[in-house]
Amino acid sequence: MIAEIVSVGTELLLGQIADTDAQHLGQILPRYGIVHRNRQTVGDNLERLTEALRLALSRSDIVFTIGGLGPTDDDLTREGIAAALGEELVEDPEIVERLRAWFARRNYPWVESQRKQGMRPACARPIPNPNGTAPGLICQKDGKTIIAMPGPRGEFVPMADGPVAEFLGSLSGGEVIHSRVLRITGMGESVVEDRIRSLAQSANPTVAPYAHPGEVHLRLTAKASTVEEADALMDPLEAAIRAELGDAVFGTDDTTLEEATLAILVEKGMSVAVAESVTGGGLGERLTSVPGCSEAFVGGVIAYRPHIKEQWLGVDPEVLERETPVSAAVAEAMASGVRQRFGADFGVALTGNAGPTSDEGGKAVGLVYIAVAGPTGVRVEEHRFRGQREFIRRRSQQAALDLLWRIAVGV
Amino acid sequence: MIAEIVSVGTELLLGQIADTDAQHLGQILPRYGIVHRNRQTVGDNLERLTEALRLALSRSDIVFTIGGLGPTDDDLTREGIAAALGEELVEDPEIVERLRAWFARRNYPWVESQRKQGMRPACARPIPNPNGTAPGLICQKDGKTIIAMPGPRGEFVPMADGPVAEFLGSLSGGEVIHSRVLRITGMGESVVEDRIRSLAQSANPTVAPYAHPGEVHLRLTAKASTVEEADALMDPLEAAIRAELGDAVFGTDDTTLEEATLAILVEKGMSVAVAESVTGGGLGERLTSVPGCSEAFVGGVIAYRPHIKEQWLGVDPEVLERETPVSAAVAEAMASGVRQRFGADFGVALTGNAGPTSDEGGKAVGLVYIAVAGPTGVRVEEHRFRGQREFIRRRSQQAALDLLWRIAVGV
Repeated sequence: MIAEIVSVGTELLLGQIADTDAQHLGQILPRYGIVHRNRQTVGDNLERLTEALRLALSRSDIVFTIGGLGPTDDDLTREGIAAALGEELVEDPEIVERLRAWFARRNYPWVESQRKQGMRPACARPIPNPNGTAPGLICQKDGKTIIAMPGPRGEFVPMADGPVAEFLGSLSGGEVIHSRVLRITGMGESVVEDRIRSLAQSANPTVAPYAHPGEVHLRLTAKASTVEEADALMDPLEAAIRAELGDAVFGTDDTTLEEATLAILVEKGMSVAVAESVTGGGLGERLTSVPGCSEAFVGGVIAYRPHIKEQWLGVDPEVLERETPVSAAVAEAMASGVRQRFGADFGVALTGNAGPTSDEGGKAVGLVYIAVAGPTGVRVEEHRFRGQREFIRRRSQQAALDLLWRIAVGV
Repeated sequence: MIAEIVSVGTELLLGQIADTDAQHLGQILPRYGIVHRNRQTVGDNLERLTEALRLALSRSDIVFTIGGLGPTDDDLTREGIAAALGEELVEDPEIVERLRAWFARRNYPWVESQRKQGMRPACARPIPNPNGTAPGLICQKDGKTIIAMPGPRGEFVPMADGPVAEFLGSLSGGEVIHSRVLRITGMGESVVEDRIRSLAQSANPTVAPYAHPGEVHLRLTAKASTVEEADALMDPLEAAIRAELGDAVFGTDDTTLEEATLAILVEKGMSVAVAESVTGGGLGERLTSVPGCSEAFVGGVIAYRPHIKEQWLGVDPEVLERETPVSAAVAEAMASGVRQRFGADFGVALTGNAGPTSDEGGKAVGLVYIAVAGPTGVRVEEHRFRGQREFIRRRSQQAALDLLWRIAVGV
């Protein structure tokens, strides 16, 4: 089955927002053996939207639209779908009723412009949207399917992962293309490729490496008649790759390094606290993005100004003065300090200069020290990242998780 | 002039990476009066790439390709452009020479497969790429232009901002379409629309609202013969909107709420510290994303487990017990505690339940208390956000910045 995505919104073309919805949907489709060959992005313009939908219908079995389902005049996706399919727009009393109830529950005054969201092409059926006002639509006609989803991420993701994924599952009867991803930390792409070279020759399943900042993802893809068969084809290959790469493989599929690291800590009954300077709270943010993280995550100190490192983490002022805040010695003292004061098994500390200019101590942009204090001592690593502030800070978080992962898995 | 972007790469369709390059380019085009109406995304497939380029050439004056310029077999953009334009691919000895020099400087062994990057359509001229091996290409034929750029972000952005922007500047002789964005916090889209309804009728400049989580962005767009003239058209409209909306307008264009808030604090010589539970460091992360933030940002405590709120922020254990950690009283005590202990003018605290399940105290998913302690007392707000964990946490950060902004601007 061939699919195509049509993303709708002038703000996408103007680059005001990234098309993360299309990215998310792109990840879902291969799981159902659906081949995604083309994506189009158009603005809030009925003529161009209709033209894009007609092109998509001419070459794809299933077309997804994202966005343009709101109540305002520049929300034109319903009209575009109706025009492309040659269908009339009709008002769906059930949708209007749900909208009225949604407004009433919140004590919002009902406005007639909302009624627009109750319109649908005659052949369409609504997909409930518990997270917003605009329902999604599934339109089936002449052997083609159009699925329309709202653009706001908090509405799109639950709809795509829930009712839309379920619908796609009901469509895929024949061949399944099934993938899994092995996630690798602390190893460059060329090293990974080199070490699995002989394994990567396999034709079914195939293996493809993708480099991400600080991680390499190996995508295994198998063709089979069922997901179970595809899994059975991939299992021995995964085992062989794991045997070769060891603990560098931290997880599969969507498992993040923070999830894997917290899981290993929970498994071992150990806890962690953080002391962040250069990342300003970003490592804590990532660790607490994981539901249930409080089983292992205690808390931390954002020690941004130098005197906070002294007062709150017990870093020796002489060391701060002599070594400057961006130094291995200060990172070590921060890690030990937060570990001890928060009563955690591990303390992770980051200090560095993310730029844009050299710091007061003359330390170069991109110089970052990361330390992990644990039951067997403190380990510190020096990094010299290149790039912009945001990138250096993200790489720093990632490197801290990598070091914590490697130490925790080995304890 | 009409432009179109063709992004190339199977990894884009599979959702393995976000198309941030196309987003970046989308931001550049309007500055040169170039209208961006369509974007296509295709995989690493010569037939579909050529088809996409032909469609783009049929309706656009200038076509940008992103990606597919590397040395491997699935890099097919050169071939696609040559096919779409009906041009031969020729080897450019100058590019090959530069490639050899690039390898020699790094002591990398020369591999013949690199020679592929020295090929170009006969009508093309190379764009130097100091950040990688693949040069960009400018291909002009029959009144149409194709500009090809490499996909890796560290190569793409400098090329787009530098030589490509310069080339676009040389093209735009006539009309300029110039935009500016007014950013609004703490007001819903419908309220904003309502209050500026009469101003929004303007035809040149036009006004268009875009809703973002917690913010509304008003895009003013003017057509004129120069950027200066366009600015002169927008100035009075901006002034009228500001007069209507007051301090809710926190900034223009790319100014973030964290930048605006830090700027007002620096202007008033005031400082801020944070105490984060539900956001786990995310507010600190956002504040420290701003270069030079240490002028106003002191640091903070990630008070994730309840006892950290007591030990590190001085929250009364009886209050914690009686009110549970997710309560207005605890938020107030956290804000006052971090303000006092970090010696800051403002203390901002967040406590809540981001889910996925009700917390131990039985508090609902999405219930968040945000407090700001300042020189004139403590203010606390209750929020009930809906959606997934990640969304609730981001809305919480945003609401905290909104409250801090409103208080700081009014002090």
